[in-house]
Order: sequence, then C-alpha cells, then structure tokens
Amino acid sequence: MSATSPRRLHLNAFLMNAGHHDAAWRHPRTQPERVTDLRYFQELARTAERGRLDSIFFADGLALWGKVRHNALGGFEPLTLLSALASVTEHIGLIATVSTTFNEPFHTARKFASLDHISGGRAGWNIVTSGTVNEARNFGQDEHMEHGLRYERAREFVEVATRLWDSWEDDAIVLDREGGVYADTDKVREIGHRGEHFGVQGPLNVPRSPQGYPLLVQAGSSEDGKEFAAQYAEAVFTAQQTLADGQSFYKDLKSRLARYGRTEDDLRILPGICPVIGSTEHAARALEQELTDLQVPEYGLAQLSGMLGTDLTGLPLDGPLPELPAERDINGNKSRFTLVAELARRDGLTLRELIARLGGGRGHRVVAGTPEQIADQLEEWFTQGAADGFNIMAPHLPGGLEDFVDHVVPILQRRGLFRTEYTGRTLREHYGLPRPANRLAAQAAPVPQDH
Amino acid sequence: MSATSPRRLHLNAFLMNAGHHDAAWRHPRTQPERVTDLRYFQELARTAERGRLDSIFFADGLALWGKVRHNALGGFEPLTLLSALASVTEHIGLIATVSTTFNEPFHTARKFASLDHISGGRAGWNIVTSGTVNEARNFGQDEHMEHGLRYERAREFVEVATRLWDSWEDDAIVLDREGGVYADTDKVREIGHRGEHFGVQGPLNVPRSPQGYPLLVQAGSSEDGKEFAAQYAEAVFTAQQTLADGQSFYKDLKSRLARYGRTEDDLRILPGICPVIGSTEHAARALEQELTDLQVPEYGLAQLSGMLGTDLTGLPLDGPLPELPAERDINGNKSRFTLVAELARRDGLTLRELIARLGGGRGHRVVAGTPEQIADQLEEWFTQGAADGFNIMAPHLPGGLEDFVDHVVPILQRRGLFRTEYTGRTLREHYGLPRPANRLAAQAAPVPQDH
Repeated sequence: MSATSPRRLHLNAFLMNAGHHDAAWRHPRTQPERVTDLRYFQELARTAERGRLDSIFFADGLALWGKVRHNALGGFEPLTLLSALASVTEHIGLIATVSTTFNEPFHTARKFASLDHISGGRAGWNIVTSGTVNEARNFGQDEHMEHGLRYERAREFVEVATRLWDSWEDDAIVLDREGGVYADTDKVREIGHRGEHFGVQGPLNVPRSPQGYPLLVQAGSSEDGKEFAAQYAEAVFTAQQTLADGQSFYKDLKSRLARYGRTEDDLRILPGICPVIGSTEHAARALEQELTDLQVPEYGLAQLSGMLGTDLTGLPLDGPLPELPAERDINGNKSRFTLVAELARRDGLTLRELIARLGGGRGHRVVAGTPEQIADQLEEWFTQGAADGFNIMAPHLPGGLEDFVDHVVPILQRRGLFRTEYTGRTLREHYGLPRPANRLAAQAAPVPQDH
Repeated sequence: MSATSPRRLHLNAFLMNAGHHDAAWRHPRTQPERVTDLRYFQELARTAERGRLDSIFFADGLALWGKVRHNALGGFEPLTLLSALASVTEHIGLIATVSTTFNEPFHTARKFASLDHISGGRAGWNIVTSGTVNEARNFGQDEHMEHGLRYERAREFVEVATRLWDSWEDDAIVLDREGGVYADTDKVREIGHRGEHFGVQGPLNVPRSPQGYPLLVQAGSSEDGKEFAAQYAEAVFTAQQTLADGQSFYKDLKSRLARYGRTEDDLRILPGICPVIGSTEHAARALEQELTDLQVPEYGLAQLSGMLGTDLTGLPLDGPLPELPAERDINGNKSRFTLVAELARRDGLTLRELIARLGGGRGHRVVAGTPEQIADQLEEWFTQGAADGFNIMAPHLPGGLEDFVDHVVPILQRRGLFRTEYTGRTLREHYGLPRPANRLAAQAAPVPQDH
C-alpha cells in the first residue's frame, strides 16, 4: 500500500457446508444435500469473487466434528477442494487449514507450493495446532499433545516449511536446451534440517511458487497463539464479541510484532462476524429467531461441552452453567474457552440462552440488521482500531453470502472502504503484503569482493 | 462387462512434465517452460479425454528426483494437480501416486475420498512403498525402511484406508430437516484400528464417495509387489520388455489372485509402452535417434546408478557394466533392478547403449513405428495373454500424446479393440470393475430374525 492510498478493509469469506449457524442445514434457504457437490462450492467461490473479496477459507479438523447426527458435518478436504476451485476462479485467494500437529512439513510445504502454482499465486495456509483428542486418536496417539508443545512443534514446522519454499531460487530454472542444463543446481539447495520434531534434508521437489510462500494465516488467540501470530502470521482470524475486546486484542497483538523485527503493517487482523441480513431490522431479527428455533438442544450442549472442556449432558437447559475449570487446565482451544465462559458470566446466561447465542458463530460475533447496519458495524470496528478487515461467516449458505455480496459490499464500496475491482493478481497483493525474499539465497550470497 | 460384449483394452496416459524420454525437454516439440503451468496439464488431460482413454496418471516421489541439472524434474504434487484437473474434465479417470511409507492412512483415505467426490467418481490411487533413502531423509529417517517391512506397512495401510472408506454407509445421510436428524449415526462407525504401524479410531470425516473406494493401482513387480497386487490391486502398471516376459508376468500375477478369493477378471494388467510415433517407420526411428542424441550422459549414468544400486560415475561409457549386487541386496525398486540388469546381460550392452535403451521409458518397452505398427504391437500383447491394456508413456509431450490419440487410437477403435465413446461415468466403470460393497456395513448387519 502506498502512503497516499486510502486504507481499505480486507474481506475473507469463511465457507462452511450449509452455513455457520448450527441449524442452517434445517433452514429452507440452504442446500445441505450439496455438501459433497463440487459445483456448490464453485458457486460459492464465484459469488465471493463477484464481490471482489480477498479470499475464501475453509476451517478443518482431522476427526468427524461434534455430532453429525444433528448437523451437516463432514465433506471435502480443504487442499483438494481449493485446488479444484482454483481451476474455476481467477482472482480470489484460497486459504486452506492444515494442522502442524498431525502433518509432516515436507508434505505440507509441497502441497501449498503446488496449490500456489496451480492458482497462479493465490494460496494461503491457516496454520492450526489442532484441539481435540479425537484427532490424536486418528493418528496413533491416545492423548492429545500438550498446548505449549503443540506450538513449539508448530514453530519448528513453519521454519522448515519456509526453508523448503526457499530451497529453489526464483531463477534456478535456466532451461538451457542447447547446453543440456535445465536447472542451475547452485540455486537448488538442501536445507539439512535436524531439529527437535523434524529431520528434513530437502530440497523441495517443487520450484519456488508465485508468492514465494503462501499467505501465512493463524487463528489461535491464546498467549501461545498470539506469540506465534506475532512471529509468523500475516493475517489473523480472531473471535471478539465487543468493540472494546476487539480493540484490546488488536492493540495487544500489533504491539507484539516489534519484538520479531516486524512492523504493525506486516499483519492483518480480521475478527469474525456472522451477519444475519434482512431488508429491515425486523426481518433480520426474525431470521435470527427462525434459526434459533431450529436449533437441536442436544447438539448445542455437545458443542458447548467441547468448548468448555466440561460434560454438560443432562443439565437443565434453563439453569446456569456449572463450575468451570481454569483456562490453564484446558488443552484444546484455550481462547475460545475463555471467550465463552466470560460471555456466559457477563450476561448471566442460562445454558439455553448460551446455546442460542453461540449458534450463529460458535463464539464469533453475530450481528443481525440491515445491510446498512452491518456496514456500519464493519466501518466502526475498522476505523476504531479493532480490525483491518473481517472474516465473514454467513449464517446460511449460499443465500447469506449472496446477501452480503449484493447488499453489504456495495455500501462498503460507496464509502470508499473496499475495492471495486481487483488490482492485484496474488493473494498477497490483495492483502497488501510483500512477496517474501528467499532467505536461503540471501544467506548463501557471496560477499562482494569490491565495494 | 457382460459375457457377450467383446473384450476391450484399457489405456492409461502416464503424464510426465516434458515427456518420458529423459531428453524430451531439450527437443523443440516440448514445452518444459510450462511444467508449473496448470493450463499445460489441462490441455494434456483434455487430449487424453478426447482419445476416450480410461485415465491419466502421475507418478510421484518424495524427494527431488535424480539430477534436476539435466532434466525437467519437479513440479506439481499429484493430488492437488488432479483435483484441479477434475474441474475441467468430465470423464477421464484421475490416478495419483501416494506412498504408504511416508503418509498416514487417515490423511490419504480422506484426500482420495475427497478427490472421488470432487471428480464424481474418477479417483484412482497408485499405491507405492517408495524406493529411495533420499525420500526417507525428508521424513526424519536416516535409513530407508526395509523392502519387506515397507510392504507389511502398505498392507496395514490399505486395510485401514478401506475401513475408513467404509466408515459411512452409503445411505448414512438421511437429511431429515423436520426431525433434526442429518445423519443416521448407526450408519457412521468408528473403525477402532490398533495395529503394528497405525492406530486409527475413525470414522472418516468424509461421507462414502461415488466409487466407494478409489480404483486401487499398484506398480511394483517384485515378489512382495506381486503378492500385494494379487491381494489388493485392481490395476497393475508393469514394465516388461518382451512378449514372452509380458506373458509370463501376466500368467504369474493372474494365477495368484485365487488365493485371495479373487478371480482373474478382478485385476487389469497394463504394461508400459513408450510409443515413438512417425508417419513412416523411418521417421519414427529418426525421432528416436534425435532424442538419443540429445541425452546428457551424466544424467543417464546417474539414473542408471540409482536403478542398479551401484555407483557408475566415472566408468567408461563404451565399456560393459561392472559386477552388480544380487537382487536380495537391493532395498529400492527390486523388479526394476532385475529388469535392467537382465536387459544389459541379454543384449551385451555397453553403458552408453544401455543409457540409450533406457532413455525412453526408464526400463519400459520403447516401440518406434508408424501408428499401424504401434497398434499391431498393442493388439499382439492384448490378444496373446500379455496385457489387459497399456500404460501409454509418450516420449515427448504434448505432441507424443496427441499423435497417439489422433493416429493410434482410431486404428484401435476401427479394430474393435477400444471404446469409441465413454459408456461409464466412473473410473471403475471405465475399467469394468465393480463398486466395492461396504464391508463394515456387511459385518454389522443384524441377523434376520425370521426366515
């Protein structure tokens, strides 16, 4: 971004089967019968691209989430799905979640490099450490690795991945047919990594990709998560319920960047928002109520039990939350635990009320209103130091995304807050972030003899 | 296939960057500058689909192959690439190589299930155990796992994967919006696997895919490899130099099926062939010579050293092969070692002659001739008990595949040996193979109380 161009917000469409509301699949405007239909996701991706959004994004878990009995869970794997969507889109960024706890850096670095080539520079990696013992049990482990250790592994994982992406210099392929030299092997390097968690010789078997590295995204908001984000992330998805919380998180995270030699402009912070859109405020609230009425209480209780690390089964829905453990005893998603526990305490919610409040965004902020009111909320957070953009979590799909693109985006564009055309070609360009220099090439560069 | 329909051959296009000849990238008809250009592979896939071929296929290795200095190596990762190609093709099968030695069954089963959904039932998995220590060194291992142990792991891997694919019954999703039931969880099962190499709880987080399982393909021709194929494979890619060798391999492998309760019709055998096509036999031989003349001897020696487990660097090119180790001492690709060693011995080849002979197909049969002559060769092997079809390895791309599709395929069609239109929708249907029944559902089926 040049110093004189106006600050613009960034919008990511967080896609999820029938939508983010846990009862969306029961609503007549959704199409849960299409969750394994590629064309369904092609349509969603094209809708987001029509809205000139920066990116689409898929969360991921390595076990069947929650209770599939009562929600449209399961379906495509993100890297294969986004590769398929790359073929039928031109501009929009493609962000896949991949866990550092249950993968190998060689595979992960390679697949993202491949997706980045496939898409002409539109790949992003949401780096997660995975939060549940059910995932561990699909990978030969009875217990889930401890939170701090997971982040330690994640740091080493990202170090290895970035070295692999740097293992080919940008101009390593010389393609000298006459001389019989395809690649200048002085510019293709082993990385020789031997660390605590990984041993990786390299080089990668993929040439350096259009973006150098995929956009590095992170979504954990615990202390470990924030430190990790400050060191590596270029975009952060976060859940904040109030403007004050959003401002405090924003300030906190941005202030941590300097200790890693980074500036505040090196990282984009995108709080989640679940916009329940109606042509009038009344219509929006009616839609929200309609979705709440479709909730299956057993599902909500199971979800809540998971978030709070506490079995709530059988407790009276109209009673209060029981005594909860301390955050330090939670080994899953620590920041989500704290957010939900505080929400319940602050507003004195019963279990039923808490389930209703969490139904739309699983802890992310839900805003019901007209397109104008939604736009006002986004503008407020954006201009008041709480956001560089937003993670848009449509409560129901495809309609909720279409409503956002057709009715909210034009307002943001009229206010000069959002692009009217794509000006960049890569995801990094959409987010106004530079292409990383090749660190291995820089280290290996010969010292000039004359100066 | 019904009992009265004529036996038809199956054709797989084995795609590889600039082509299978190791000097292809230096030939003016190739486009090595496009090996990370998705459109290049889209064009190749569409060419194969225009020829009504059964499938396209990518080999794979988890380290940078051979000497990238002298060949156009590296590029896309197969699962991401084939997912991207699924979006822009309609009929052709999509076969990806994935190693059981360096992957986890949960990830692998999931990605293939996802690709099978993405492509509407066109996924195939070429199951390999990986052959080189360079791959092991990218996954924290100093030594490469022993050959027999690799196959033991592969068997357990495939058992786990098939159970994961069976962990959802085909009709598990009931989508009862009114009653709030998305899936009948009596039909979504944990697999509870605890074995020597893996512990996987399941279920998979992908509903059962159009084909049930991807087509299971295998390419190792060692004793271990043949037993593995007899037990699990539905299509086998193999390298055979002579009709007699092809017949012997075919008979041997088919005879092994019965001990696993399978019939000879449950497995398709596809020897590799590198067709060097010319409008006259003279033109074909001239093209073959032109490619040989472009070979880089250092590259050929390095490739040969790898295949023979013997460092040949510095030996005189016009001299004979040195003493070689025994097959039992080879821990890489045992069957390729034996094939190459026998080829050199049988024909009394110098190193230079052997490098030339292997340049086109790395041990696969190279046939130079007119389209009619190529078709004759295919027909002979197909009708003389050496093949159910062929793995077509164009020496140069895209031209070599175009020549095959435009000139050889029509001859095969006129002779009634090959389909003129796709009659099936899935890869299994192209190969005339059934959709697997769900084994977990069969085991769990309640015993009828009345009969």
